[in-house]
Amino acid sequence: MGPHPAVAAIRLAVRRVLHEIRHEAGVPFPAGPPPLVLVACSGGADSMALASALAFEAPRAGLRAGGVTVDHGLQPDSDLRAREVADRLTELGLAPVELIAVAVGHSGGPEAAARTARYTALDAAADRHGAVAVLLGHTRDDQAETVLLGLARGSGTRSLAGMAATFGGLSGGSGPTPRYRRPFLAVDRQSTRRACLAQALPVWDDPHNSDPSFTRSRVRHEALPVLEKALGRGVVEALARTARLSRDDADALDTWAREAERAATRPDGTLEIAALHDLPPAVRRRVLRRAAIAAGAPAGSLFARHIEETDRLITAWRGQRPLNLPGRVEARRQGGRLVLQQANR
Amino acid sequence: MGPHPAVAAIRLAVRRVLHEIRHEAGVPFPAGPPPLVLVACSGGADSMALASALAFEAPRAGLRAGGVTVDHGLQPDSDLRAREVADRLTELGLAPVELIAVAVGHSGGPEAAARTARYTALDAAADRHGAVAVLLGHTRDDQAETVLLGLARGSGTRSLAGMAATFGGLSGGSGPTPRYRRPFLAVDRQSTRRACLAQALPVWDDPHNSDPSFTRSRVRHEALPVLEKALGRGVVEALARTARLSRDDADALDTWAREAERAATRPDGTLEIAALHDLPPAVRRRVLRRAAIAAGAPAGSLFARHIEETDRLITAWRGQRPLNLPGRVEARRQGGRLVLQQANR
Repeated sequence: MGPHPAVAAIRLAVRRVLHEIRHEAGVPFPAGPPPLVLVACSGGADSMALASALAFEAPRAGLRAGGVTVDHGLQPDSDLRAREVADRLTELGLAPVELIAVAVGHSGGPEAAARTARYTALDAAADRHGAVAVLLGHTRDDQAETVLLGLARGSGTRSLAGMAATFGGLSGGSGPTPRYRRPFLAVDRQSTRRACLAQALPVWDDPHNSDPSFTRSRVRHEALPVLEKALGRGVVEALARTARLSRDDADALDTWAREAERAATRPDGTLEIAALHDLPPAVRRRVLRRAAIAAGAPAGSLFARHIEETDRLITAWRGQRPLNLPGRVEARRQGGRLVLQQANR
Repeated sequence: MGPHPAVAAIRLAVRRVLHEIRHEAGVPFPAGPPPLVLVACSGGADSMALASALAFEAPRAGLRAGGVTVDHGLQPDSDLRAREVADRLTELGLAPVELIAVAVGHSGGPEAAARTARYTALDAAADRHGAVAVLLGHTRDDQAETVLLGLARGSGTRSLAGMAATFGGLSGGSGPTPRYRRPFLAVDRQSTRRACLAQALPVWDDPHNSDPSFTRSRVRHEALPVLEKALGRGVVEALARTARLSRDDADALDTWAREAERAATRPDGTLEIAALHDLPPAVRRRVLRRAAIAAGAPAGSLFARHIEETDRLITAWRGQRPLNLPGRVEARRQGGRLVLQQANR
């Protein structure tokens, strides 16, 4: 009798990613102990299921499996809970298992600060153990939530691209390969819960996940259920598909903009109007955004209206005055060229 | 004392569009009566506000204003109501005013069938009166709903592009110009209601708009309010902005794909693998989709998985068998070429 279908599903997802890791690391492996893959585990159903699947699949792929749990110290008794999670990882057969306590700052809001502290700790653990990859338990449902959060920003295709399946450079071996991987981006959250249940793995529900003061929690518990009711059951899958398609589209347009910028830039750093004028608006605006940032405008303060006004120096020229962009960057048209320059103090 | 702010807002939106129409028609106008702009009016707040603003602005822009109301015959007494709407349009000073009764078919579902019948009637009216444009009352809220409906399909950037500000070719004058225009795509629905109230214009609420058996009605009355609660007040604006950005992005990628297809197509109609291989995936998949449709695959039956499998003949070639695509189109790799061909019966 085979494993429970949910267990089979999570193992398959992990097997595929381990296969990629082996492939990218180059076969045969160098002599010595098998390469180590770490799982980042909060104790929730998603990452606990991921840990169990990694424990099962890693030896079969000629890899070692280890685990890291991060104690953010944000809730009472978080240290005890983190200890429990670490013990469970050890019981699953992972080695090494690390419990890392971090100090969460305040920069960028509570969610961003916790994330920064967490990835700093995971990076350090991966470096310390020479791990070839760190697996993260984000599911298709997390991806759908991320797309909705990006939609609320309304800043276009890149903001709809959700979470990447892989990210973070790791150099070594046959070149830089991504450090972080998300094997469960196409697996639904429900399956990870079922897999834990089927394997009698206790899971811990982070109260933050149901705290309506967090935007993501409201998206999960209020927005998505109503969207499913209004638009049909397939919404989560449609949002996850939107993420993949939007990421590819945004990448392609960035490639085009990079090449168009190179072709339009003169040796003195100014841009040829003639080389920009006939580009599609979506590409021209990306070129202008890149050029403004290169001139010193902070990306976070550069809004669509800044770029649109700069664009009118090209497409609707009627002798406008120079524009002031964020970061004391001035945009002006000078003969057949567009000049983006930081004003001297 | 100037007009109510909502009335000022709807007039400004219409003034801008009439300015575009004048500009595109070429100035000075040909001799004879001033060109005619029609408004399509259901009697709801959006299109009634549009009719009132057109009645006010058209003479000031040297244009004539007329109106059309379509009786879909889908509700009891719809003919009486259409008569009332036509009378109101006349009272606003529009001339000519037409009431057109249409027979709604069943093809594509009730909403699509009503839309087809409506545009057929509007096209005919515009032709009959030689109108230079037909204005439609869709608001920013309608646009946000359309983006959410597209998101639910999950078919990428084009499906998020919402409604176009202008569409429908109309040849004549200095070349083809769009027939249909939506002056209110950046105006919120609330403003059109306030403008009607301020002008003491009675409006009619189509019961279809609150009938939960229509997906759009569920999006309007259930999904959007909850999204606003979860994500904040700016959601409608963010969705409308997403539409504009997605439309530009989709247009740019279509341009690239068209050029890439031309560059990769050999005189015998097959595609050079080498010319496709290094394209960004988003562009390559668009080329393959175009090529499959050109070979006879019906666009509506061609899903992402068909295109992805075809793509693997290029990027993951290991001697696969030919693929069967919808419309009896076969995709196969033959030497350095990709062949997309309709199988003979």
